[in-house]
Amino acid sequence: MRRTSALILIGNEILSGRTRDDNIQFLALRLGELGIPLVEIRVIPDIRETIVNTVTELRARFDEVFTTGGIGPTHDDITSPCVAEAFGVPWEIHPPTFTLLEDRFGRENFNPARQRMAKLPKGATPIANPVSIAPGFTIGNVHVLAGVPRIMRAMFEELAPTLQKGAPVFSRTWHTTSLYEGALADGLEAIQDRFPDLDLGSYPFHREDGRHGVALVAKGQDVQHVNEAAQAIHDLLKEKGGSPVEGEPPV
Amino acid sequence: MRRTSALILIGNEILSGRTRDDNIQFLALRLGELGIPLVEIRVIPDIRETIVNTVTELRARFDEVFTTGGIGPTHDDITSPCVAEAFGVPWEIHPPTFTLLEDRFGRENFNPARQRMAKLPKGATPIANPVSIAPGFTIGNVHVLAGVPRIMRAMFEELAPTLQKGAPVFSRTWHTTSLYEGALADGLEAIQDRFPDLDLGSYPFHREDGRHGVALVAKGQDVQHVNEAAQAIHDLLKEKGGSPVEGEPPV
Repeated sequence: MRRTSALILIGNEILSGRTRDDNIQFLALRLGELGIPLVEIRVIPDIRETIVNTVTELRARFDEVFTTGGIGPTHDDITSPCVAEAFGVPWEIHPPTFTLLEDRFGRENFNPARQRMAKLPKGATPIANPVSIAPGFTIGNVHVLAGVPRIMRAMFEELAPTLQKGAPVFSRTWHTTSLYEGALADGLEAIQDRFPDLDLGSYPFHREDGRHGVALVAKGQDVQHVNEAAQAIHDLLKEKGGSPVEGEPPV
Repeated sequence: MRRTSALILIGNEILSGRTRDDNIQFLALRLGELGIPLVEIRVIPDIRETIVNTVTELRARFDEVFTTGGIGPTHDDITSPCVAEAFGVPWEIHPPTFTLLEDRFGRENFNPARQRMAKLPKGATPIANPVSIAPGFTIGNVHVLAGVPRIMRAMFEELAPTLQKGAPVFSRTWHTTSLYEGALADGLEAIQDRFPDLDLGSYPFHREDGRHGVALVAKGQDVQHVNEAAQAIHDLLKEKGGSPVEGEPPV
């Protein structure tokens, strides 16, 4: 069964270049393993209308939607009320989360800003946060995670067992030095035509020390087809004068 | 003057997790410097309809649109014909580029796959590629760059002098250890309310060795407002018992 997912990174820090993203690759790999591959990613600012519209659009188009960022206590943390708006439900205190956070912070430090983190869209299920307590949540097919990578990963692993898995994606890679993509393109396209269910990719590499070459990847849900395509890729690299080595090229 | 840009990363390797993105932060920082800040990023697969629709939507919504990836010689390199389709123009041999590439590869090696790299949307202007010759191009407000970071950066610097600049974005940051966001949220929101033209951000940090704290950033095009907000942030951190230090927290 083919399942799909999309990811929305919410916040200005990636768009401004302040922060280098450290969430995409983790989620891309884990979702591939779970058979719910990522098909689209958006990075958007913390603007109410943009968040509401993006969540509304993507939750209709993909089986699962993940968001990261914007669930802390500050004025720019507006993901949670925006997701409530996208689902047309109230954004309200979630009593068990309120109690959890009040115990954590102590009553005298549990100020209005921190109380915002106890509000969830009505009907949402919290996702436990083993690092810093304040939870993410799931509502419908939308999963709202923290933006801080360590917290996001912990939340994702709490969530993963509850996700409906799809067929896992298999992948095999051959690389060779010295050859260029342009010499392999026709042969690779012929292999792609034989295996229309697979995704064949060609990734040139150029190292600082002058080593260069190309990696060819066959990927798909039919392991037999992936193995046959990998053999054909090996034979193509040989035929064109390369020295095929299985796996990714060394850095 | 407020100018805006969007970025489209085209290709399956980021979505599958094979490759960690190394283009977003460079472009985010350079476009901020040029006063054309990034307002949205999309990562999409190399599917014709998706590319055409995404380019069509974003070029109408933003002043400048940049794409990376999908301009090599292989069957999955379909960015260039898709951009032609989005503009409703033919995709055809660009004679000066054909000559350039034929000289580079030699007539006998200039096979049909490589000849694809000499095709541009009708009316496009090539962007020189000082690394590996095959050019990117500009058509209207869409700028098509390579996906390999070293080549992308070189193309961007060829392009940058031709872009219409906006007002540059100024930014000042204070950080402190020990304090948490939740203690600062109300005070920060009050500063945001005083400077609605600025973008104030709050970024908690948690280091492996247990150091934690928060960085507060004031950003905007009015340098006077940025400086006043930075002073107010400093005073807030002091008042709440922090030890404010200017700049980003050490790693």
